[in-house]
Formats: sequence, structure tokens, C-alpha cells
Amino acid sequence: MSLEKVCIIGSGNWGSAIAKIVGTNTAAHSDQFEPIVRQWVYEEQIDGRNLTDIINTEHENVKYLKGIKLPENVVAIPDVVKACEGASLVVFVVPHQFLKGVCEKMKGHLAPNARAISLIKGLEITAEGTRLFSEEITRILDIPCAALSGANIANEVAMEKFCESTIGCQNMEDGMVFKKLFNTPYFRISVIQDHVGVQLCGALKNVVAVGAGLSDGLGHGSNTKAAIIRLGLMEMRKFGQTFFGDAVQTETFFESCGAADLITTCNGGRNRKVAEAFVQTGKPIEQLEEELLNGQKLQGTLTAQEVNEFLSARSMQKEFPLFNTVYRIIYEGLSPEAITAEI
Amino acid sequence: MSLEKVCIIGSGNWGSAIAKIVGTNTAAHSDQFEPIVRQWVYEEQIDGRNLTDIINTEHENVKYLKGIKLPENVVAIPDVVKACEGASLVVFVVPHQFLKGVCEKMKGHLAPNARAISLIKGLEITAEGTRLFSEEITRILDIPCAALSGANIANEVAMEKFCESTIGCQNMEDGMVFKKLFNTPYFRISVIQDHVGVQLCGALKNVVAVGAGLSDGLGHGSNTKAAIIRLGLMEMRKFGQTFFGDAVQTETFFESCGAADLITTCNGGRNRKVAEAFVQTGKPIEQLEEELLNGQKLQGTLTAQEVNEFLSARSMQKEFPLFNTVYRIIYEGLSPEAITAEI
Repeated sequence: MSLEKVCIIGSGNWGSAIAKIVGTNTAAHSDQFEPIVRQWVYEEQIDGRNLTDIINTEHENVKYLKGIKLPENVVAIPDVVKACEGASLVVFVVPHQFLKGVCEKMKGHLAPNARAISLIKGLEITAEGTRLFSEEITRILDIPCAALSGANIANEVAMEKFCESTIGCQNMEDGMVFKKLFNTPYFRISVIQDHVGVQLCGALKNVVAVGAGLSDGLGHGSNTKAAIIRLGLMEMRKFGQTFFGDAVQTETFFESCGAADLITTCNGGRNRKVAEAFVQTGKPIEQLEEELLNGQKLQGTLTAQEVNEFLSARSMQKEFPLFNTVYRIIYEGLSPEAITAEI
Repeated sequence: MSLEKVCIIGSGNWGSAIAKIVGTNTAAHSDQFEPIVRQWVYEEQIDGRNLTDIINTEHENVKYLKGIKLPENVVAIPDVVKACEGASLVVFVVPHQFLKGVCEKMKGHLAPNARAISLIKGLEITAEGTRLFSEEITRILDIPCAALSGANIANEVAMEKFCESTIGCQNMEDGMVFKKLFNTPYFRISVIQDHVGVQLCGALKNVVAVGAGLSDGLGHGSNTKAAIIRLGLMEMRKFGQTFFGDAVQTETFFESCGAADLITTCNGGRNRKVAEAFVQTGKPIEQLEEELLNGQKLQGTLTAQEVNEFLSARSMQKEFPLFNTVYRIIYEGLSPEAITAEI
């Protein structure tokens, strides 16, 4: 059996935290993996030096994960083709807007038996339908693609704080290979087959977190917030089972990618925080994105908008009262009080 | 059809909040309920006056729910026999140590068709087995007994903050009568048949909250806490399905009594707080109960002890690693770090 050749596509905060784990595990399981992990790093200049050179000499991504040493067998490569050439296991952890372009460049360069895993949160939702990022990867590269998601704040993972994560992989044998690549005593992996549910949870939780933030902004207590989280979990499941059928399993929502990630996102996180400020300041969401996120788009409100477009096209908004109410409060001027009155 | 006669047994913080709801609803649905709600109030002297007299003239339980007006149709009665005479719907909301004595006094005084509902959190667990408080009520009074539980901090309910609650009632027709008695726009009731699961959740969540507090005390972040909450939810379900079989439904853990109440309890609440102090101060739990709870017993550690006794008698501690680890940290000197290492 030839050794698996691993490459990581992406090097942000989460990509760097995951590179630390993957590098440690390929070195530890040299019977199964080639130790060298190639990481595609979008080249940037830091104080006149290439970020890839800094990573390869100082073993630290000083821009996106400062203070954390990376294993020396993780090699940063600025050219995506060189990074992925002959790879049999490909870990995608790029911002979603770069995914398509990167995949196009990688075409024809992977090993014949290559399998991918997507750590990209979210999915594309339009009036026409939905597209999971794993599906996009499969479509362009013609390889199977799993997904990993969980209650995993990158900095806490990098500091080796105990947490769990979920891999959704249709082929359980591949799922076990990915488990070996990611599992550590402090980053505990469960493997399930429902890769659709894993990705849905990662996207829809952000809409619920906006709802939780609206409740916080109104000064409601923990009973109310717990009710919003619970109703949100129910709508996430209903969305999955309505539009993806049996592919989406009830058990998925008990996994780290489900309830646990939802809880973390509703207690901390930018979606909750910006929604709280939305109520307290009365400013439009675009202005808060400028002021609080340096102009970055908030994921939860964007997803609320996409979900609304999708549901409107099917006249089904009323069946998802929390998603619908969040959308109407943020974009249609509905009073924030509706977050409890309308759900 | 004769009108239902409602009585409430208990008048603490939660009993008073629920009396406000029940009184409002019996008055609103006079086609189904006699408006007068009799509430058994353990007599106490407040500045030289009877607490029952204060409640009946000022319509406020100044000792246990200060600042909240009760409906005038709620009548406080110091004699439990007079309070329950001829009652057809009995709401139990007393501290559990008083339940048996109170039930003994009530024997023979209820209406022939009487049904009860228990709002008492917890259950009795010993080496021999478990006994739900609803079972205790049925055993002594020979009437069916449902249960109500949810993410319901009494003061927030009294202030009409939106929340949800779950009624578990084997007979769904009775369940709907209880729903009418408790449901309001701000206190939203779901009725399920699984009264066992409803009560198990209310007891076992406190053990999980101790685990969450230990994690907080160690300074672990939100990933870790979300993992503990999730693993706790899984053990709660496993405990129910192992020892009560099909009576305990997976869906119950998605209800307010399950995930939502667990989230609230692990984020706030005394179990979390005292466990956090246990790690930070190194003091034994009895001393912290003196210092932080005026000598009241902490529910979560007590339940952890009972669960341990029950599981030990069956040599099954290892199958419930979170419950077991919480017990060993609190009572057997295991290092708090085990909360992540051993689960």
C-alpha cells in the first residue's frame, strides 16, 4: 500500500490550526502517511518577507496564527499546482469565494485515487437551489469529498483545549483515514456518513446565532436564549430533512457539528455580537459590518438572506419562522421584539 | 362536563411564578376551569404577619417572589387538606423532601377523577433503583401524574420573558388539559408522552452542569464547554434508554426539558458556579455549600453521588464517563483536569 500524500489548501486562522494537527499526525503515523504535508499559502509580504518563507523557516504563520509553532514537516508552498501535485488526500480550508478558482487550477494534478475533505463552513443557497462546497469540489475535480465541522474555535484548538469535531463521509473507510489524519487526544473526531447534515449545520447555525444576538440585545434572559437555540436546532433539522430527505440524519444534530457548534456560536462569535449591536444601536447591518468587522460581511445575515430567497421561491417561509423572522428583522424593518413574538 | 378544580401544592419561587400563570389561565378559560386556584402555602411569619394573609390581601408572595403581582383568584391556604379538598387537577411544586409527607395528608381528599402534574426537579436514585417523583405521587395518591420541565428560571418566567417548557403526560388528552392550564404566549408548552425522559433530564442536567463548571474553573474555552454539554446530553439519553428502555424517546432531548434546559443550566446556575469555585479555591464541596449557598445542598453533586451508587451496583460506571468523572473529581480527589482527559 502506498503512503497517502497530504496537502492542505488554505492557510488562514483555521487552516493554520489544522495544519498543526495534520502535520503532527502524518509524522506520528508514518506507516500510512508521507510525513511531509504541503500547504498552499496565498503569498503575502510581511515586513518585506514572503509569508511562505517565514512559515518554512520559523514554523509559524505570524499573520494568521501568531504564537503557535507549526510542525516542521508542514511546508508552505505559494503555487497551488506544486502544492497539490500527486496528492491523495486534499484538505480544503480556503475562504469560500476562492474555492472555484483554486479547484480549476488543481484539475489534473491530483493522484488518481485522491479524496478531499472540506473544512469550509457554509453552502451556496440561491432561489434555484443549494450547493454544498463538497459538491462543488466533486463537480470540478471529480473526486469524492467529505466534510469536517464542529465546535472548533481555531485559537482554542491551536492551544490544544479539548474539543470535538465531526467528519461526515459517505464512504466510511475513507472516513477512518481522515479520522487518523485529524484525531488527537484534544481534538476528538466522530465519523458519520451524513456529510450533508454536517455542512448544513455549519451554515445555518449562523442564522440562529443572529437570532440569539437579537435576544441578547433586547435584554432577554437565558430562558429566552435557550428557547431560540432549541427552536433554531429544530429548524436546521427541518430544513435538512425537507430539502435533502433521508440524507440528513437526526443523530447528526446531536454531534459536535450540530448542538455543540450551535451552542458555542450562540454564546460567543461575531454573528451574535453584531446582532446584539443591531438592536442596541439601531444602525443598519452594513454600517455595523464596517464598524465592527472592518467591512467584512457577516455570515449569518448573508445566509438568512439566501435562505429567505430559497424559501420564498417555494412559498415556504412560514414553515421556518425563526429563519424568516431573523431575515425580516435585519432586512425588512420588522421590530426586533418579533424574535420572540413571531417564532 | 364539570369544571376542573385546580390546586397548587407549594409556594416557593417557582411555585409562585407558576401560580401567576395558572391563575391567569383559569380565569381566562372559565368554560373549563373553576377560576379560583387554591394554593397550599407553608405558613411563615413575615414581620409579624402570616404569609398567607399577605398573599391574600396584597397578592404578592413577598418572601419568594417579591415584586410580582399574583392574580386575585389565587387563594393561599395554610392547611393542605383544605387546599386540595375536591381538587381534580393538582400541581406539585414543593421541595422534594416534603413530597411524601404532604401526599400522605392529601390521601382521600381529592376528586375521584383527579390528575396530578409534578414540577419537582429530579428523581430519587439509590443503589436499588430509581423512583420518579411522579411515580411517588401515583403510588401514594393512586392518581396519574404527568411532569413539567424546561429552561425556566422562575424569575424570568415571572417577568414574562419568552421561554418554552415541556409537559410529559402518558395520556395525551390529560396532557392537553394541562397545556391549557400552563400555556401562555410567553410560556410556550409542548406536550409529549415521555414523562420519564422529562424528569430524567431535570435531574441529570445538574451533573453535566457541574462538569461544565469544572471546565470553566480550569479556564477552558467555549469549545471545551460545548463538548462537555454535548457529551452530557448523550449520557443523559443513554442513561434513560439503558434503564427505562423505549419509554425514553430521543425526541425528548430536543425538547425544552432536554437541550434547552441543559444549555441554560450549564451557562448560569448554581451547579456550574459552585463547581467553578471548587476548582479555583480547592475547598471541599461542603464548605462551598456553606459559603455560597447558605448551607443548602448542591443538587448536581448530590445527583452525581446517587448516580454513582446506582451505576456501581451494576458495574456500569465506565459506560458513563462524564457522570463518573464528575463524581470522582468531587468526591474521590481525582484531579479536575480529568474532566477533559477521562471523558
